[in-house]
Amino acid sequence: MLKHYRLDNKHSKALKDFDPNDTAGFKDKEKILAEFEELKEQLQEEQEKLFASKSHGVLIIFQGMDCSGKDGVVKKVLSGLNPQGFRAESFKQPTSDEALHDFLWRTHKVTPAKGYITSFNRSYYEDVLITRVHGNIDGKEAGKRLKHIQHFEKLLTESGTQIIKIFLHISQDFQLQKIQERMENPEKLWKFDPSDLEERRYWDDYVKAYENVFSSTGTKNNPWYIVPSNHRWFRDYLVLKIIVSAFKQLNLAYPKIDTTQFNSLRPVPVES
Amino acid sequence: MLKHYRLDNKHSKALKDFDPNDTAGFKDKEKILAEFEELKEQLQEEQEKLFASKSHGVLIIFQGMDCSGKDGVVKKVLSGLNPQGFRAESFKQPTSDEALHDFLWRTHKVTPAKGYITSFNRSYYEDVLITRVHGNIDGKEAGKRLKHIQHFEKLLTESGTQIIKIFLHISQDFQLQKIQERMENPEKLWKFDPSDLEERRYWDDYVKAYENVFSSTGTKNNPWYIVPSNHRWFRDYLVLKIIVSAFKQLNLAYPKIDTTQFNSLRPVPVES
Repeated sequence: MLKHYRLDNKHSKALKDFDPNDTAGFKDKEKILAEFEELKEQLQEEQEKLFASKSHGVLIIFQGMDCSGKDGVVKKVLSGLNPQGFRAESFKQPTSDEALHDFLWRTHKVTPAKGYITSFNRSYYEDVLITRVHGNIDGKEAGKRLKHIQHFEKLLTESGTQIIKIFLHISQDFQLQKIQERMENPEKLWKFDPSDLEERRYWDDYVKAYENVFSSTGTKNNPWYIVPSNHRWFRDYLVLKIIVSAFKQLNLAYPKIDTTQFNSLRPVPVES
Repeated sequence: MLKHYRLDNKHSKALKDFDPNDTAGFKDKEKILAEFEELKEQLQEEQEKLFASKSHGVLIIFQGMDCSGKDGVVKKVLSGLNPQGFRAESFKQPTSDEALHDFLWRTHKVTPAKGYITSFNRSYYEDVLITRVHGNIDGKEAGKRLKHIQHFEKLLTESGTQIIKIFLHISQDFQLQKIQERMENPEKLWKFDPSDLEERRYWDDYVKAYENVFSSTGTKNNPWYIVPSNHRWFRDYLVLKIIVSAFKQLNLAYPKIDTTQFNSLRPVPVES
């Protein structure tokens, strides 16, 4: 099932070939609820093995248009994780200090250590997306940066970091509806940014920039997953499924410890 | 003169082709003293322009065998810099946190921002030197890491960081003499490390590993400089000359500011 949503060297498709309304045949949320809860438990178990073995790090990258639900997916899918082994990072407009460094600097320093999970809400990919769409960099510079991203992800991968790259795919209509909700609901108004209305005009340019990203950086080891996100419940379910599947492929196990070394040890109650 | 000490794609030489006793014809310290002071002033002026313009960052990497004088050169050559725009970093055995990340992680996060100078006393090059010599990684892994270093230095260079790579070149006899001095002088004893005596036995392996580093990573833009270091005064002089020369090639200038915008401003004394 996941294969259908996967983009890598061998499975190259245009974004329009994916339907943002797709729910893989499931009619509604009730149908996947039990499996969703089961997957969440599996993820917690996988995190425990990751932490105990320190064999890998796991980096989960979320990209998507405004209102595609990057914040929501972190909350809904990753909130059950043990916070001691997990960090949710979020990248906005670079700070003045960040802007004085190479574009990978701010993200590299918060990549996960072995044993840990880190999620990126937006990432170094913004440096070939928003910057490219607004003409801050040209195609040549974007090409250079994409090469640097390839090498960087290779470095992380070779060092034991599993990278999971997820694009939350929504339609333009859906985005408009979400922006209107934000403007009208006092509890969502704080998320409304007038610039979102401005950014909507660049939709087609973003699609082009994203497709360039997918074809350059979707590889066998580090594919992109295109997650239909007009239906929040399906989005959360599929994202969780992708993450758990990636963990399973790591074949994580608790470290094997020779217990004979403990033979002479006998826990005794402390006398008070 | 500097060309003679330069190693890049076009000028490939073996380490034994460089004489650690070389002083470029200078008889003693007195002969270069005036120029040394003059160069130090020039470096301070260059640092000021770097800080004002924020056009580049400068990364100075010092590598060399034990006792080659990496600590000394930082003290003697870089001590006149404005500390506000300069940081001296030093890399020892990785900490447990560092060891859980890719090998470029700990150095990347302390690379200089534009406007700043950072010196590395040892660097990511240790990850293809000491580890290679002691068999912690094999030739294949070393080759991969050298490729990552190439890409990493390209990233920094394209982002405006000038990298200056300096190898402090001493002889085996000189090293022995320095180790003996450390063991006998109570004020130097704290620098003596018994493992230095052990490491000496790997001299030829280190030479081989270094020559591999030079041929893989000495490029036109980021050459290696082999600095004869048996004579401390010549070492300091040549290192300073290399650094100042690298700065001059950046053509740094104070930012041009349109002063007509200040025409309406008139500084007036504050009435007390």
